[in-house]
Amino acid sequence: MSAVSIYPISGLPEIVNGAPLADLIADALARLGMSLEAADVVVITQKVVSKAEGRVVSLDGVHPSARATEIGQRIGFDPRHVEVILSESVRIVREASRVLITETRHGFICANSGVDRSNTGGKEMVVLLPEHPDESASRLRARLQAMSGVAVGVVISDSFGRPWREGQVNVAIGAAGVVAMRDYRGREDPDGYELQGTELAVVDELASAAELVMGKLDRVPVALVRGASLAGDGRVQTMLRDPATDLFR
Amino acid sequence: MSAVSIYPISGLPEIVNGAPLADLIADALARLGMSLEAADVVVITQKVVSKAEGRVVSLDGVHPSARATEIGQRIGFDPRHVEVILSESVRIVREASRVLITETRHGFICANSGVDRSNTGGKEMVVLLPEHPDESASRLRARLQAMSGVAVGVVISDSFGRPWREGQVNVAIGAAGVVAMRDYRGREDPDGYELQGTELAVVDELASAAELVMGKLDRVPVALVRGASLAGDGRVQTMLRDPATDLFR
Repeated sequence: MSAVSIYPISGLPEIVNGAPLADLIADALARLGMSLEAADVVVITQKVVSKAEGRVVSLDGVHPSARATEIGQRIGFDPRHVEVILSESVRIVREASRVLITETRHGFICANSGVDRSNTGGKEMVVLLPEHPDESASRLRARLQAMSGVAVGVVISDSFGRPWREGQVNVAIGAAGVVAMRDYRGREDPDGYELQGTELAVVDELASAAELVMGKLDRVPVALVRGASLAGDGRVQTMLRDPATDLFR
Repeated sequence: MSAVSIYPISGLPEIVNGAPLADLIADALARLGMSLEAADVVVITQKVVSKAEGRVVSLDGVHPSARATEIGQRIGFDPRHVEVILSESVRIVREASRVLITETRHGFICANSGVDRSNTGGKEMVVLLPEHPDESASRLRARLQAMSGVAVGVVISDSFGRPWREGQVNVAIGAAGVVAMRDYRGREDPDGYELQGTELAVVDELASAAELVMGKLDRVPVALVRGASLAGDGRVQTMLRDPATDLFR
């Protein structure tokens, strides 16, 4: 297994509704003297994908429900922001002061249904998650492949908190053309002991690796991962645990 | 921000109690034509650190308690394995068929107190987590620095599952000489909106990135991460959430 390299792809403009992401990525790569190679993985932050898909809402036009107002007052959030969070969720998982953890319509469990108020392009704007992130990744992948002529993977990343540990890590919310999980189940270790329950969520590890070159305020919304040898057809949607077997709902 | 490269460091021998890990890593690097550079981060799997520290137990000598026997029968685990898991834990967090999630004496919440039965060096052997992983990382770092003459970081990684998502990811269980969390709190985005609650657990992202070149059965227990610019003095122990504010205990 050889080295993996992660390149920050800077120089993308502010992304607006309808922005041709694949073209902008190709332009940015060209300015860096780079081009896509077979099996490269393009990791792109959720925020620019959402902006390009018009998943942006102005709080000026949001009229919070009584429930959103009550929750907002209780936890110290703008009730209009809470209204949007609720509209993107199927249920509230946990609520505390300045914390609202929800299950999104996709099935992600994360803070604020992934509705983000920072780096949105305007102080009263919020950015929602893409409606179907795996499909967003597939579309971007198809366009990148058509332009470059090589087979690549695409991962859409977002920063999620996790129980028990402080801090967020980048995880995958959508993917195309990459392995989602590397499966060691049923294989044996050198001593003949069967590896049980060992599946590595490599698509999340790709997202985390990419974050190392991104940096929140530096506007590096894209990273290129080269050498990971993870071409495949995984989907993030299939990685979400069945609620029936999830011990932490 | 420039590229980050991750190199698999293969060629280490089977690690036994007392093995001089720093020397073995330096030897392996030399055979690969590499040497440590300032600000490199050496990511090493928990298993080889534990083996070098003698944290290996033969199940042949374990006499399970009545409680371990009862749990083992209920969840389908070897009661001797359960006995060791319990001895490393302060409490059971969740229990289900073939699943035992505990809080370790360090405060990690993970499967089986991190007591592992695969790749242990023998079919009846189990490997425990290091007693003080941050200190293990510090010791390894000091030795690597003394040998190489450059300041490096060390991360000890292990594969942990997580709620809500299938699959495990590599996280840090010990660290020395690296930033644990990159803190964006109190900074403002370009629109003047203050970034709230945004801390990236970069030490875990380093561990995840390293896993991309490791591969469970290929015996690549060490990876070198170059170019991440994350020199610092973070500790993993400080990243564990205060139980009083943890919403998922």
